[in-house]
Amino acid sequence: MKSTRIVLASRPTGMPQPENFRTETVELEAPGPGHALLQTLYLSLDPYMRGRMSDAPSYAPPVEVDQTMCGATVSRVLESTDPAFAPGDIVLGYAGWQTHSVEHTSYLRTLDPAAAPLTTALGVLGMPGFTAYSGLLTIGRPQPGETVVVAAATGPVGATVGQIAKIKGARAIGIAGGPQKTALLRDHFGFDAALDHRAPDFAEQLAAATPDGIDVYFENVGGHVFDAVLSRLNKFARIPVCGLVAGYNATDLPPGPDRLGLLMGHILRKSLTLRGFIQTEFLDQFGEFYPAVSGWVANGDIAYLEDVVDGLDHTVEAFQGLLTGKNLGKLIIKVAD
Amino acid sequence: MKSTRIVLASRPTGMPQPENFRTETVELEAPGPGHALLQTLYLSLDPYMRGRMSDAPSYAPPVEVDQTMCGATVSRVLESTDPAFAPGDIVLGYAGWQTHSVEHTSYLRTLDPAAAPLTTALGVLGMPGFTAYSGLLTIGRPQPGETVVVAAATGPVGATVGQIAKIKGARAIGIAGGPQKTALLRDHFGFDAALDHRAPDFAEQLAAATPDGIDVYFENVGGHVFDAVLSRLNKFARIPVCGLVAGYNATDLPPGPDRLGLLMGHILRKSLTLRGFIQTEFLDQFGEFYPAVSGWVANGDIAYLEDVVDGLDHTVEAFQGLLTGKNLGKLIIKVAD
Repeated sequence: MKSTRIVLASRPTGMPQPENFRTETVELEAPGPGHALLQTLYLSLDPYMRGRMSDAPSYAPPVEVDQTMCGATVSRVLESTDPAFAPGDIVLGYAGWQTHSVEHTSYLRTLDPAAAPLTTALGVLGMPGFTAYSGLLTIGRPQPGETVVVAAATGPVGATVGQIAKIKGARAIGIAGGPQKTALLRDHFGFDAALDHRAPDFAEQLAAATPDGIDVYFENVGGHVFDAVLSRLNKFARIPVCGLVAGYNATDLPPGPDRLGLLMGHILRKSLTLRGFIQTEFLDQFGEFYPAVSGWVANGDIAYLEDVVDGLDHTVEAFQGLLTGKNLGKLIIKVAD
Repeated sequence: MKSTRIVLASRPTGMPQPENFRTETVELEAPGPGHALLQTLYLSLDPYMRGRMSDAPSYAPPVEVDQTMCGATVSRVLESTDPAFAPGDIVLGYAGWQTHSVEHTSYLRTLDPAAAPLTTALGVLGMPGFTAYSGLLTIGRPQPGETVVVAAATGPVGATVGQIAKIKGARAIGIAGGPQKTALLRDHFGFDAALDHRAPDFAEQLAAATPDGIDVYFENVGGHVFDAVLSRLNKFARIPVCGLVAGYNATDLPPGPDRLGLLMGHILRKSLTLRGFIQTEFLDQFGEFYPAVSGWVANGDIAYLEDVVDGLDHTVEAFQGLLTGKNLGKLIIKVAD
């Protein structure tokens, strides 16, 4: 069995470019004991992958040059030496940017195609949804009547954060780029207010939309959105720090003045809590997450939005768009039917 | 009865200067119902007072111009209309920079001069000790074998932080300015290592003293100490943010590059917790703090050091010294015998 795969050819500086990747076709070996041969159906594209392309210290080791780019996948089992997985089974795994792969079955979880659309295992019912659920509820702890702000709010993490905040009785303010996305925040996801961070008067709009200040800011972008949020934070505000996508392609520190001490002063004077996290820290909550969020999806309390791009050969271009906000909802590559 | 008092004459820019204060003598009225006339014996000087001299937003309202400077005090009751307080009683209060005052008795706590030296009520057994106890144990949560770092470590907060960390089984690294203070850290307070932040190779010394990284950094100074600590922080490190005295006199943001995003990146990648606090948040722990720490002081597990300056007329000069680290231990003005 052949696999077509996209490997990291070189480490990008700034925005990843096509020349940083190389498409190869390799012959796969037959699955050994405890392994399965998989055909990728859907590949998840997520902002964290930009970090894996760099060898800067991070919470996870980088993808090595000449290695297949990593990524969560929904796949069909073609062959298996593990009796727990039969040909035709659909599984969630971590096969990366490739059409076929041989995986150890301990990394696979069988999906029930009748329970929910398969793609949701990569979005609202998968890692992004769990990131939103665990970070918001464990660190953010929104209380009824409080104000929760989240950016990249049409993305699978941000949209889920806002909707869980609403379920918990908080006001949810969503931030996104451009009028199409802010309309989605209001109409599709039910945010109480939706702001375009590209507006010249964004900071003033944020102030107007948060008359009682901000109690929880779920940080997944950084940059000028955080700058505007900082002065609106209430005493005892909580900031789960989940991502900083606005800076992922930065090659230099921005010019001064140096505001590190300014941020520390806000933390001190307002008794703020900032807590970085990655969802794997909270995996013991997955057992409560899945029934809760799948129930909210089933009863309509949580809407989701997916942006499915057809064909592995569009992966690099789609990933570039993810880093600049071109996608509309959870970005997924459809690799095969 | 007359009182000599020091009022804030104008708001300082940068380091407070003598012309920012004015000494006045006023005639006090006789204490009304529920009040007591007090003679100040000891006045506590603490870094937070610099913040009260400014009208920048903070956790507490500023001292108004022409108002008596605030501060915790140990006083003798001269007259009282409250039967719970008799002439001759010694009380802890918040009378500020003055020789006598009339105070509502609800703000007073009777001290037992036989239980502990009166000055400890302003230091290790008072607000500074409680700041150390509550911030370290609630936010820092040092575990046996972990590494705890604290600066201004000969001060009453830092010294108590280090010694409680040791009691909890952690390694304690103290930072202070100059060889006299680092010797005290080792010999008087029993820190496992003592570093001089004025050393040209301070960052290298810190790295050498923290071979397993830093799990808890109790932040009370900011500035270049924090910069050196940042790269030594371990995954899941906790940073109680208690003070930033290095920047209290700053009038401008420092020059760039802007490292705000750099700090956020550290928080994200290392799953750091930064939490600002003021000890009043944790007052419900005072009932456990007092017996615990007074017991450790009594059995010698916690040493303390006080720098007692004689005479209210030396208050401004002593306070300037506090902001530049000239004092050696808890700074107290002896106002009367």
